[in-house]
Amino acid sequence: MLEFTGILQSESEVPLYEQLYCSLSAAIQNGELKQNAKMPGKRTLAEQLGISVNTVDTAYQLLVAEGYLESRPRSGFYVMQVEQPIQTVPQSAVAAPEPSVQWKFDLGTGGIDPSLFPFRVWGRIQKELLYSRPQLLLQGKGQGDVELRSVLADHLCQYRGVTCRPDQIVIGAGIEYLLGLLLPILGSRLAIEDPGYPKVNRLVKNAGMTALPVPVDEKGISVQLLAKTDANAVYVTPSHQFPTGVTMPVGRRSALLSWAHEKEERFIIEDDYDSEFRFDLRPLPSLQGMDRGEKVVYIGTFSKSLAPSIRIACMVLPKPLIQPWKERYGSYASTVSRFEQQTLCEFIRQKHFSRHLSRMRNRYRKRMQQFKAALQNCFGKKVSISGEHTGLHLLLRFENVNEQQLVDAAINNGLRVSGLSQYSCVAHTKGACILVGYGCLAENQIMPAANALQQAWKGLV
Amino acid sequence: MLEFTGILQSESEVPLYEQLYCSLSAAIQNGELKQNAKMPGKRTLAEQLGISVNTVDTAYQLLVAEGYLESRPRSGFYVMQVEQPIQTVPQSAVAAPEPSVQWKFDLGTGGIDPSLFPFRVWGRIQKELLYSRPQLLLQGKGQGDVELRSVLADHLCQYRGVTCRPDQIVIGAGIEYLLGLLLPILGSRLAIEDPGYPKVNRLVKNAGMTALPVPVDEKGISVQLLAKTDANAVYVTPSHQFPTGVTMPVGRRSALLSWAHEKEERFIIEDDYDSEFRFDLRPLPSLQGMDRGEKVVYIGTFSKSLAPSIRIACMVLPKPLIQPWKERYGSYASTVSRFEQQTLCEFIRQKHFSRHLSRMRNRYRKRMQQFKAALQNCFGKKVSISGEHTGLHLLLRFENVNEQQLVDAAINNGLRVSGLSQYSCVAHTKGACILVGYGCLAENQIMPAANALQQAWKGLV
Repeated sequence: MLEFTGILQSESEVPLYEQLYCSLSAAIQNGELKQNAKMPGKRTLAEQLGISVNTVDTAYQLLVAEGYLESRPRSGFYVMQVEQPIQTVPQSAVAAPEPSVQWKFDLGTGGIDPSLFPFRVWGRIQKELLYSRPQLLLQGKGQGDVELRSVLADHLCQYRGVTCRPDQIVIGAGIEYLLGLLLPILGSRLAIEDPGYPKVNRLVKNAGMTALPVPVDEKGISVQLLAKTDANAVYVTPSHQFPTGVTMPVGRRSALLSWAHEKEERFIIEDDYDSEFRFDLRPLPSLQGMDRGEKVVYIGTFSKSLAPSIRIACMVLPKPLIQPWKERYGSYASTVSRFEQQTLCEFIRQKHFSRHLSRMRNRYRKRMQQFKAALQNCFGKKVSISGEHTGLHLLLRFENVNEQQLVDAAINNGLRVSGLSQYSCVAHTKGACILVGYGCLAENQIMPAANALQQAWKGLV
Repeated sequence: MLEFTGILQSESEVPLYEQLYCSLSAAIQNGELKQNAKMPGKRTLAEQLGISVNTVDTAYQLLVAEGYLESRPRSGFYVMQVEQPIQTVPQSAVAAPEPSVQWKFDLGTGGIDPSLFPFRVWGRIQKELLYSRPQLLLQGKGQGDVELRSVLADHLCQYRGVTCRPDQIVIGAGIEYLLGLLLPILGSRLAIEDPGYPKVNRLVKNAGMTALPVPVDEKGISVQLLAKTDANAVYVTPSHQFPTGVTMPVGRRSALLSWAHEKEERFIIEDDYDSEFRFDLRPLPSLQGMDRGEKVVYIGTFSKSLAPSIRIACMVLPKPLIQPWKERYGSYASTVSRFEQQTLCEFIRQKHFSRHLSRMRNRYRKRMQQFKAALQNCFGKKVSISGEHTGLHLLLRFENVNEQQLVDAAINNGLRVSGLSQYSCVAHTKGACILVGYGCLAENQIMPAANALQQAWKGLV
């Protein structure tokens, strides 16, 4: 019989019955206690271990409840059959180190400046809601809280010319999440911009669909070339094409809408990212607003206007897609915490958001102008700069330099930059075009970053 | 020529150039200004409207930038071609009313008691993080913040016997979200529990997979019947089978693991929901812990232990699925806001969560006992009650009553209840079995709710 002494530690915080339970279940699992073996009587074991009979009884009852032991009337406790699953080497719960890169100058295109975040107001609203509305702990609507959707319908109408009712709006934890749900109801062939967002390509692939790249020219995606594909739907960024920064003019928009209206199953996904950051003039209203609710799925995010880590995006469904959406996803719970939804709702309703946007626009405009000046100072006529009208990144074109070599040299100098080719299906061959974001570039980093890029470039020419 | 006077309002908050831009773009869109029409000169229009030339120039430049006008050198501004998209009746931005049911007694199975939420501690941690760690505004790891994953690995090990490294953990905004991503990498045929969660059926359907219902007996899902299907994977709730409340004993668990180990492509999804609320004895450790990381995907949620509206769930991937997951979803952003992740992380790390859990367990146990006593008081031997060991709902069985009629009568009496058949593929015919949750049942509602149910039942016998 098994030796039971020494398995209990009286100083441990774990209750004695639990220590006993753990030892015995382990002994049964690893075969030390064999099937049909009779367990020692409760009194005997209690005496042997110097613990109370009650403690042993609790452990035995637990082992019975969980199928390790069976209690045979007027006989005692017996070990039951436990099949041995195939065992592997136990893992440690210690964190494996995850790689992380430290950039000297983060010129990524998704960065923002955390110091512009409205900590005080956001924190106040958050706190007020937590203490005043405990019912926000209960489950809300799957599409998002009605209050937020109503406020967003007004906001999108006023700022982006979007025409919708709150019941067309779906709130979700990021654009990827919303697109992941949307794509399967749009047919099997999605046209995408080339160059464009690599993430969209990945989403299309994961949805088991085919991505059809369509070239972007100086007015955005080519509708002529789009019409030559057999796409059911198209994903576009008309306010600020990623990565080229082109804004689609109204004529091209009309042509795109006409393409969609030619067939019932055709739809347009309008990703309105970065439309908040138009520095020169008022942004062109959304494509969705030109269409009035039949063909355009409008998506927007608060990743840049608030923070990338606050996961709130919204989607406006056109009328023909509301029913298919409800059929598939009507029972899904929302992916955004209600306190966060309501904080954003109050933030917009109390006009803090519009003030925040205009403050950010001014700060980023100034930073862009300084960065542009610094780059012109470093490179003179060797660089051609574009993308200064909208969004938080610039495109720099250099002649007589290999793009990949320039990107590699910049990365070696601690600069996080990317080349236009990274976003393209067809590599362009003449010169280099690199993307430099300034969202999280501090004022005192502007000159050093431009200088570091100049150094990288000088090594190649 | 168009009459331009009267289109500007000097008292408006909208800048004059924007008002002019809006009127002109609308006139071009609706055809009042025809293609190729020459626009009035800037000076002429400025005089006519009593505004500055600069204002007119800004509006014209904007219209040019957006493709409404073109500027012909030494000639002036001309209206460009704008195709007319098919227009529909504009919608109002007013909220359409959404239906909402008011229950007299909410006995749903997903409810919790908001008054138990640790408002003070949660609010304090949230506030401290917001002010002290602005870098949490920046994008975090797609799988979730490393700190939270490390704390969860420890917590799951201690409380649920889960053996994993932090890099096996994925944090996501709810179980539906995580399952929605997981299912496509598990093959095409998923066995599900019958009776079971209807939501899983919907997820399987949305993933384009086949759901294979396998009967549940008094030990959980039948492994014998599972082995007769050609399922690649199986979804189970071994801690607290939904809806029957059965806990899977260790023998059945071993058999299930053996089934999975028979073929390389087989996996088990262990949904560990409600395992926090075991009232009699220590919960049986997770299936994942018996297997040590090869075959079981463990999923858990904080919907009930914190609140349904706080959207944090976690998933532990077995080693063979880590690479497939990274390939598909490695570029996806997290769906949980980082401040919320870190609040939970600190809440667990500072031991508030374990205290909160034991407080909740005591409160809910007491409530369950009171509710059970009230029901026994009302129904005597006419009811057979089960499900009192785990979770926040009871199963009530009545003989000689039609289940659907009882559910309908209860709903008419203002009780939110459901019948077991609602969760089953095969309707059971003998008597009625209804589910009554007590998570959000206030103490003073316990007797009235039992009485209301008795009234509904009396009308049928």
